[in-house]
Amino acid sequence: MEKVAENIHGYNYGSAEIAVSRVSIHDLEELKISVGFTPEDQIQLRLAGEVLADQTKRIVEHWRSGIIAGIPNLRRHSRSPEGEALPDYIAKSNLRFEQWIMDTCLRPYDQDWLNYQEEIALRHTSVKKNKVDNVQSTAYVPFRDIIAFIAVMNETIKHYLAAKGHSVEEVNRMHSAWCKSLQLQLALWARPYTDCGEAANEW
Amino acid sequence: MEKVAENIHGYNYGSAEIAVSRVSIHDLEELKISVGFTPEDQIQLRLAGEVLADQTKRIVEHWRSGIIAGIPNLRRHSRSPEGEALPDYIAKSNLRFEQWIMDTCLRPYDQDWLNYQEEIALRHTSVKKNKVDNVQSTAYVPFRDIIAFIAVMNETIKHYLAAKGHSVEEVNRMHSAWCKSLQLQLALWARPYTDCGEAANEW
Repeated sequence: MEKVAENIHGYNYGSAEIAVSRVSIHDLEELKISVGFTPEDQIQLRLAGEVLADQTKRIVEHWRSGIIAGIPNLRRHSRSPEGEALPDYIAKSNLRFEQWIMDTCLRPYDQDWLNYQEEIALRHTSVKKNKVDNVQSTAYVPFRDIIAFIAVMNETIKHYLAAKGHSVEEVNRMHSAWCKSLQLQLALWARPYTDCGEAANEW
Repeated sequence: MEKVAENIHGYNYGSAEIAVSRVSIHDLEELKISVGFTPEDQIQLRLAGEVLADQTKRIVEHWRSGIIAGIPNLRRHSRSPEGEALPDYIAKSNLRFEQWIMDTCLRPYDQDWLNYQEEIALRHTSVKKNKVDNVQSTAYVPFRDIIAFIAVMNETIKHYLAAKGHSVEEVNRMHSAWCKSLQLQLALWARPYTDCGEAANEW
């Protein structure tokens, strides 16, 4: 599996520490159908993975420094409660963010992937935010901010998908697969945020 | 305001029957920034509204009969608990669906719009589903299905945006604005679904 760095703090995809998702493979298959995600999209994501592999650092910089840092209600989630920068936290979570791009494109969407989606969601809620990096920051990322930022990632990724000389049609196919995958992941991330036993009331 | 029919059952946009949203205009402005929704996008949506105005019936038929009807876990939400078709329910909600396309493109995103977003969300939850049409159907539409279907609407609308001879760049600009608006609306619809006092546990 393509890794963006040898050591990615807090990245434990597929390990025994990751709980089994409450979402079943059957639910996932239904969701794929609802999203319109097909085997052709999986192929397109493989290609996108090749195209994006050496650009993940630049992409995450663009999202983190170029966009989130300029939006007060978003940047606070990677700062201290007093609004001070936390460079170590940013560096670690940026690396995981980079790896997430690769996982989106290259991982099979199987039980391990499903389990890690749940873990990613929980790490944005009060259940697990800040814990893996042992930092003090906002207690959770409101779910509405996650929904909103999906639109930004979808919009901005197109430039990077087009950076390796593929035709407009090829870029469009990769982009369409990317957008479907992100919406599929968003649907999975909604689970703990809509669960009164976990992280609801974190809109 | 452009209306798709003189009489749209259950469509009471801007009326005194619609409660004031729990989301403030300030929250909405922050969300627009997070989504990257600009005044230019509003202009692009006006153009999209002109392009789509005489196509809303075809678009909703495409979504309803062409896609949802073929997906068992989606089509059940407009059928009886026994799975029987409810033609009157479908006809009424299709008309509101058509009008929603127009409202997405042509309405100012102000307090009335915000209030109606909350109403739309509630009508998909157990708080209000089936009530305006006085039908027996599923108790609610799981939030994950709504998230998923946004991807389908984004993917399929492109064809209709391109149907009036605009250039690829013009269509792309309209489409980008459309996608941002839908994600903005999805973020607003998430509110009751993440609220334990309203409709959480309806993932």
